[in-house]
Amino acid sequence: MAKFMDVHSGFHGVTREQLSEAHDADLKIEGEEGVHFERAWLDPESGKVFCLSTGPSKEAVMRVHERAGHPTSEVYELTDEV
Amino acid sequence: MAKFMDVHSGFHGVTREQLSEAHDADLKIEGEEGVHFERAWLDPESGKVFCLSTGPSKEAVMRVHERAGHPTSEVYELTDEV
Repeated sequence: MAKFMDVHSGFHGVTREQLSEAHDADLKIEGEEGVHFERAWLDPESGKVFCLSTGPSKEAVMRVHERAGHPTSEVYELTDEV
Repeated sequence: MAKFMDVHSGFHGVTREQLSEAHDADLKIEGEEGVHFERAWLDPESGKVFCLSTGPSKEAVMRVHERAGHPTSEVYELTDEV
């Protein structure tokens, strides 16, 4: 299973609860695409959210985020980690 | 201790060994700034590297990366994670 990092912009001033709600919306439907979102990190000042996931493809990750209401096209396949 | 995600661009075609060398260069000096790089993820196709760290400030994270030879100004303070 491939690993991905995706980046959202526009989460300015978002609270922890709102981040949690967005993450839960992903978790609810991710299984339908064989995706699992392991972690999401928020910087409310810059509005960035970073999501670490595993799944069959970038497109599957993007579809889950789109259906959950927070699409992004910035999805990177991570071939190595240390 | 605050948590940060920083993003490097320009690691196109970089190998796992080269990523590991860059990460080791950080680990060797990070203590001098009270920083710890927990994880680094590489996408050699886009050239992106994402580094997760803890430390006293963005500036401390940037100084370690600069002294280790791979500076970046894209450092985000992560106030929440889920």
